[in-house]
Amino acid sequence: MVGLGPGSPEHMTGRARLAIAEAEVIVGYKTYIELINDLIDGQEVLSTGMTREVERCELAIARAVAGSKVAVVSSGDPGVYGMAGLILELLYRDDTHKEIELEIIPGVTSATASAALLGAPLMHDFTVISLSDLLTPWELIQKRLHAAGEGDFVVVLYNPSSRKRKEHIVTARLILLQYKPASTPVGIVRNAERDGEEIIITDLENMLKHPMDMFSTVVIGNKTTAKLGQYMVTPRGYNV
Amino acid sequence: MVGLGPGSPEHMTGRARLAIAEAEVIVGYKTYIELINDLIDGQEVLSTGMTREVERCELAIARAVAGSKVAVVSSGDPGVYGMAGLILELLYRDDTHKEIELEIIPGVTSATASAALLGAPLMHDFTVISLSDLLTPWELIQKRLHAAGEGDFVVVLYNPSSRKRKEHIVTARLILLQYKPASTPVGIVRNAERDGEEIIITDLENMLKHPMDMFSTVVIGNKTTAKLGQYMVTPRGYNV
Repeated sequence: MVGLGPGSPEHMTGRARLAIAEAEVIVGYKTYIELINDLIDGQEVLSTGMTREVERCELAIARAVAGSKVAVVSSGDPGVYGMAGLILELLYRDDTHKEIELEIIPGVTSATASAALLGAPLMHDFTVISLSDLLTPWELIQKRLHAAGEGDFVVVLYNPSSRKRKEHIVTARLILLQYKPASTPVGIVRNAERDGEEIIITDLENMLKHPMDMFSTVVIGNKTTAKLGQYMVTPRGYNV
Repeated sequence: MVGLGPGSPEHMTGRARLAIAEAEVIVGYKTYIELINDLIDGQEVLSTGMTREVERCELAIARAVAGSKVAVVSSGDPGVYGMAGLILELLYRDDTHKEIELEIIPGVTSATASAALLGAPLMHDFTVISLSDLLTPWELIQKRLHAAGEGDFVVVLYNPSSRKRKEHIVTARLILLQYKPASTPVGIVRNAERDGEEIIITDLENMLKHPMDMFSTVVIGNKTTAKLGQYMVTPRGYNV
């Protein structure tokens, strides 16, 4: 399980790069495979479309059982809404597979890659919440948004919007407005460290004026988060 | 601002490694400087003790103002309880300094480095909370623990315990027990990807039997988190 980081090869760890170089088979969603095109040098590539996660992991396990060294690639970190959990579930569903040697290689996840582009919004306690309700009841997501507001966490939203699901970010904003002022800084990063990178710093009042999609990450400040010039910063409390 | 990742150089990004190689001056807490000893090749090193963050950042800024290429190193990600926010605050406190060219280089933060060693506990919405009350009122930390419990988040605790502060983890556990069953899996990782690495998977009932310090990261599951063999996994909901 290899975490590729946000996108550009320079933000990939040495361990991830080595794992890809040593792999005989690389398995991944096609958008992720494109990120590492330059690193592919003779490995067999098995790529499938977006909602085929179970199929992709079963394929990877089958090849590993057959003796190949397989790299399952995820963007960001494979353990954050990635494939690491599914691979483990599938390995342990079938006792005969759990002897496969497994390494989970962490990567820079979008929360911190996006934060670095925005300034330093995650200097204090934060929550990471995905607005995708494909695998999670929308009621539970709303409950978590309320809890995040209640605790005055900095909130990082993954999957804020998609072609078929545009209303959740509207509701998420309204929930957070029950706890946070409309002037709370909001950072929106699209395609972090990839072609077409966009960095916007706005506020809860105006955030919906900016386009968001499944390649966007949204960071919403806590009560102390401020704009400093072109940056969004949550002070840690040093009283400087 | 350079994020070193959890510890071993192999989990550092290529960008971080290059920034260190190109720096003329490296500034950092001495424990972090030790992590990159093998990468230091002629750069001037300015290292100070743990609670001297403001002094360290002011030193780095002074050297940058004087024209040097300075790398301020943090373990993990510089934007997660690291030095990125403080540097930005100091730069913007003094208008004459804000023209300094700045790059924040993200790294693998302890939440995901530790998760990768535990299995896949962060496959679902999570919170990151530091139990250090040096810069944060303990009342606010407790409020966030309640909110994290209320929202059934997976909870990642940074700085769970230190020599002078051993009671907060005891209270944190009691707060989370108001929302989570005693059987909830808990992972404790100490010195992730460094010498002396320790990985323990236990539960809320028994977690305090294990030693924790400022080099430990604690991951507490949500209602669906399970132990699978030697791993801790929060299912994403694929119904496999």
